Amino acid sequence: MITIGERINGMFTDVKNAIKNKDAKVVQELAKRQTDAGATYLDVNVGTAAADQLNTMKWLVEVIQEAVKTPIALDSQKLEVIKAGLEVIKNDVMINSAQGDPETLDIYMELAKKHNAALICLTMNKDGVPQNVDTRVEIAVTIVEKATEYRMDMDKIFIDPILLGVNVDQKQPAYMLEVFNQIKLLSDPPPHITVGLSNFSQGTKEKSLLNRTFLTMAITAGLDTALMDVLDKDLMDAAICSEMVMNKQIYSDSFLKAARK
Amino acid sequence: MITIGERINGMFTDVKNAIKNKDAKVVQELAKRQTDAGATYLDVNVGTAAADQLNTMKWLVEVIQEAVKTPIALDSQKLEVIKAGLEVIKNDVMINSAQGDPETLDIYMELAKKHNAALICLTMNKDGVPQNVDTRVEIAVTIVEKATEYRMDMDKIFIDPILLGVNVDQKQPAYMLEVFNQIKLLSDPPPHITVGLSNFSQGTKEKSLLNRTFLTMAITAGLDTALMDVLDKDLMDAAICSEMVMNKQIYSDSFLKAARK
Repeated sequence: MITIGERINGMFTDVKNAIKNKDAKVVQELAKRQTDAGATYLDVNVGTAAADQLNTMKWLVEVIQEAVKTPIALDSQKLEVIKAGLEVIKNDVMINSAQGDPETLDIYMELAKKHNAALICLTMNKDGVPQNVDTRVEIAVTIVEKATEYRMDMDKIFIDPILLGVNVDQKQPAYMLEVFNQIKLLSDPPPHITVGLSNFSQGTKEKSLLNRTFLTMAITAGLDTALMDVLDKDLMDAAICSEMVMNKQIYSDSFLKAARK
Repeated sequence: MITIGERINGMFTDVKNAIKNKDAKVVQELAKRQTDAGATYLDVNVGTAAADQLNTMKWLVEVIQEAVKTPIALDSQKLEVIKAGLEVIKNDVMINSAQGDPETLDIYMELAKKHNAALICLTMNKDGVPQNVDTRVEIAVTIVEKATEYRMDMDKIFIDPILLGVNVDQKQPAYMLEVFNQIKLLSDPPPHITVGLSNFSQGTKEKSLLNRTFLTMAITAGLDTALMDVLDKDLMDAAICSEMVMNKQIYSDSFLKAARK
């Protein structure tokens, strides 16, 4: 699967301090460790602590690029922060994320097209975050239509139906699986389906077990990428094993090792 | 979920030796440990080593019943061995298993009815073990029809669509999930759906990971019981977590403990 490593985020204390102290080493170490663990992309989020988000994003991207060639996912709700990151990007890049209003999608699709970037689109709009299946799928339809309008390669479109915490509403996991099943059918080839996996277990005491249980279910229902803790070995094993069981990788006794190569 | 502990089986060396030496303690210890781990039923299979299968089955049932009150699943392909076990059963009981030919089902439904036993019915018949979805479902229909004819409580019927090893045919897991989804719709209330979970990972090197990954997928598709290694804590955690995520148990920070009570 396509994994987006979540650890370079100013919400984590070590990264927050590294940003404050301009300590490149901490950031580069996280970039290397996540790359070694199999991250396809490295998410980069300045968090809320930085006074100058634009220059912080640039600095993070630059120090990461000194350490690894792994593609970066520029993660911000602010268009200007994304644009600042794009100015200094050298390798493949992902934009994380656009909301699903048609006018917002116009701006982000244009930007993604210009930079040949992958684009995560959330199934939320100015009315907020839908909690049901139908509205999520309706917004996904808008996203797919816009992608088609902009002649985006569907392989560059990542639809995120916004995963909520299991401790918030226990009906949501089954809804999400249904949403994944429906999104797969929206186009051929279909867009990617992604989630912010750690949201699922936020505020719980069995984070790793909950994350890998939902990830296994989600992969079975068509999810093929996630923003996740790639440093959680059990979680990565579950991801690899789930894809193998769903016949996306050939079985061998060493299928875990084979997938990590 | 309804778990059937697989460990009291003459195929395991410790049980084989215990049968040979009439060592009740080994068997009773396995009965207690599986009961403590949350087994709903204890499967009892004399294996192939015992010269006198009928008396061995009786002995096993008797020594287990001295130690625990956990219901027993009498496991044999031979009707006479099942009948020998039924002669000495004191508590609730399950018959494991009948094949899905109408004439065989007549015999086993009659027997189950007489002893108020739960009954596992395999989706195989004299033509062999089907490898596809349709034939499995067709045989499941025959089983449900026979159960209706015999006015069996559908809660006593456990349909086993016969899980094959992932290293045998990687198309099978997806087929099985489809079979589970279809069996659920055969009646209201539906029969239970069960599998011999350890078959999935037979001959592989990642047994626990493979078993819990498939179990999570299977629970999502409607499976609610399995013959499995209840002593594998990670597997039991995965089972409990999967059912909670599918909203069959209320979330609390201590949901794992709560389910084990």
